[in-house]
Amino acid sequence: MSPQNPAAIQVAGQAGRLLMKLRAERPLVQAITNYVSMDVAANALLAIGASPAMVHAPEEVEDFVAIANALVVNIGTLSTDWVVGMEKAAKAAGGLGKPWVLDPVGVGATRFRDETTRRLLALRPTIVRGNASEIMASARAAGLSEEAVKPKGVDSAHGTEAARAPAIALARHQNCVVAATGPVDLVTDGERVVEIANGSPLMAKVTALGCALSAIVAGFAAVERDPFVATAAAIGVYGVVGEIAAEKAARPGGFRVAFIDALDAVSAEEIARRVRAR
Amino acid sequence: MSPQNPAAIQVAGQAGRLLMKLRAERPLVQAITNYVSMDVAANALLAIGASPAMVHAPEEVEDFVAIANALVVNIGTLSTDWVVGMEKAAKAAGGLGKPWVLDPVGVGATRFRDETTRRLLALRPTIVRGNASEIMASARAAGLSEEAVKPKGVDSAHGTEAARAPAIALARHQNCVVAATGPVDLVTDGERVVEIANGSPLMAKVTALGCALSAIVAGFAAVERDPFVATAAAIGVYGVVGEIAAEKAARPGGFRVAFIDALDAVSAEEIARRVRAR
Amino acid sequence: MSPQNPAAIQVAGQAGRLLMKLRAERPLVQAITNYVSMDVAANALLAIGASPAMVHAPEEVEDFVAIANALVVNIGTLSTDWVVGMEKAAKAAGGLGKPWVLDPVGVGATRFRDETTRRLLALRPTIVRGNASEIMASARAAGLSEEAVKPKGVDSAHGTEAARAPAIALARHQNCVVAATGPVDLVTDGERVVEIANGSPLMAKVTALGCALSAIVAGFAAVERDPFVATAAAIGVYGVVGEIAAEKAARPGGFRVAFIDALDAVSAEEIARRVRAR
Repeated sequence: MSPQNPAAIQVAGQAGRLLMKLRAERPLVQAITNYVSMDVAANALLAIGASPAMVHAPEEVEDFVAIANALVVNIGTLSTDWVVGMEKAAKAAGGLGKPWVLDPVGVGATRFRDETTRRLLALRPTIVRGNASEIMASARAAGLSEEAVKPKGVDSAHGTEAARAPAIALARHQNCVVAATGPVDLVTDGERVVEIANGSPLMAKVTALGCALSAIVAGFAAVERDPFVATAAAIGVYGVVGEIAAEKAARPGGFRVAFIDALDAVSAEEIARRVRAR
Repeated sequence: MSPQNPAAIQVAGQAGRLLMKLRAERPLVQAITNYVSMDVAANALLAIGASPAMVHAPEEVEDFVAIANALVVNIGTLSTDWVVGMEKAAKAAGGLGKPWVLDPVGVGATRFRDETTRRLLALRPTIVRGNASEIMASARAAGLSEEAVKPKGVDSAHGTEAARAPAIALARHQNCVVAATGPVDLVTDGERVVEIANGSPLMAKVTALGCALSAIVAGFAAVERDPFVATAAAIGVYGVVGEIAAEKAARPGGFRVAFIDALDAVSAEEIARRVRAR
Repeated sequence: MSPQNPAAIQVAGQAGRLLMKLRAERPLVQAITNYVSMDVAANALLAIGASPAMVHAPEEVEDFVAIANALVVNIGTLSTDWVVGMEKAAKAAGGLGKPWVLDPVGVGATRFRDETTRRLLALRPTIVRGNASEIMASARAAGLSEEAVKPKGVDSAHGTEAARAPAIALARHQNCVVAATGPVDLVTDGERVVEIANGSPLMAKVTALGCALSAIVAGFAAVERDPFVATAAAIGVYGVVGEIAAEKAARPGGFRVAFIDALDAVSAEEIARRVRAR
């Protein structure tokens, strides 16, 4: 992206404001998420100022989507009975026009994950967030051709560049926002593309921080109508928080504590000063 | 309550002693609890000196209740297959005369939770612990009239006052102890009523600390025959621990660490000096 | 063991090297583990340098075992539907010659656990790790006679001595490695026996650190062909890490943070200097 990328200018200008809006509105985020991430995702949502609710049973997901402000569906610790609740919740969110985020953890690793991702993509998530390989596998699961999924041109070694073409193709095919996160994060709605160059390598040393990010993306989408801006802003805030935490703690145990503290403490001014969107 | 409330004097006088008794006896607390709370509830039980065991399967709950000293049933991340184990365990505890605590997380939010709470209340929990709105919804689930559930007189804005009338009505109807926790906590057995004015707002910024409290209430009920005194003492200890932790850490990540440390470190003398029962 | 125990000399000499090997190879450890342990086991694996994946569904465990480097099966929060996935995964690991660890949490407490342990033992785990009473109950579940399970001679009060005879008998019967952990840990393959005298009492004050150890044992078994050496080395490293953490924090909240930090920070030199194998 050039420094004049208007999408980047918009994201950098909005991220701090959206953080304040989230804290003021305290959106209720319903999370159907994996067991590993339950604790850290709930705590991350609380720390940033949202209100988490982990509700997954087919018997009640529709009732709950009706009162939630956004939904995240994460397939990390998948099982057949949970897929039923995921699909019901996703349909309910779609029907009510509420934003929902799909986090296709581990898609590409097993046929069960590929098939589940295919079914969930058919229910039209507002946003898909994963790492580069999950975004590529999601594009395959959506039925895109190998030609579309294949990285284009001289791709750099880092995963985000490799995910650029499939992310854009998936976003266009699904008419959704796609975020491929990694050392550099990429967000696209198929037309606009922004890269976010914040974060810390320590974030990959704490389990489920990516899952917690997907939940926070849902929170931002609850307070901002443009899901592209919401997603990129959430990712920018998260990356800045990771940098602040890494200034406090150099090892993963202390880093996790500092990360939760920084989600609570970070100001709109710090966000505006530190987000590197391009 | 007047300063001469005999129940308050009793609770303030007993809380420290019961903490020491719990640490000496190390009661085995069986927890059928939600996924979000598993880690923090187990660690809170260990830190205060109890022995946690998360055992929920219908195939084994009865065997396990037979060796446990108390049971907590928490409906946070509810599903139909878990309700079977909850009901079997509750029946077994009732049959063996072992105390059990119901934590009706989110009751009032969905019909599934209302119906599950109704079924569990019919199995006669020793203690029901929830926030003000959960206690009001539990009273409705128990079949109490809107007249009984409705806050009486000039209720203050804070939730605990609003929960006073339904808490007392529910306790009388169920012949159990009811605790409505919030900025000020209220405990009643339908006759005695005590308020506990300890705690810190940071406790609401860490997920599942309420669920962990329900598990600790079960631990106190295992070492004290009067469940009203056990419940109020546990809540008083927990609130003092929250205050001590808040003196150490101002943000939720560090607060959680300090809270677990304080559960381990707090002395009977600190409890006696700091519990504010009235 | 005498100071000249060749197995102890081998373990002490190899532990640091195997830690470096694990960090270099980053084995993918598939964990079918209990809900309580999900967070801490994943974080412990990440901190020490392995790559965790919690995958349990019958629909995908075989696909996933094919890409994993080792498997741990932990029965802590057991239910019938999970047993199906456990058995499929264990069979797949056996068929592919990949090491797998059984952690029979709570065996002996209920018939369901005894029966599940019996079925899993029949699938030939590479390593069984539990506390002394779980190893004794596993020996019973394997069909060993009370005579074989009974502690031999003048057993000391501490659990590890009591578990010596059943651990050796179980290892011979199963042709596997058995680790009975406690204040002193014992590892045997039925011929070799080594004791590890590292660790801190604080490790028992943090939930699921034993479960996390079983996952780390799987990680070591992925990088070392001799499962006896792998198991004893993992236990030695873990104990040293516990000692380092106990030098930093005296209470369980802070200890957990320091423990994760020390898994990340500990050097091969510290391991070589501090492992007490005998």
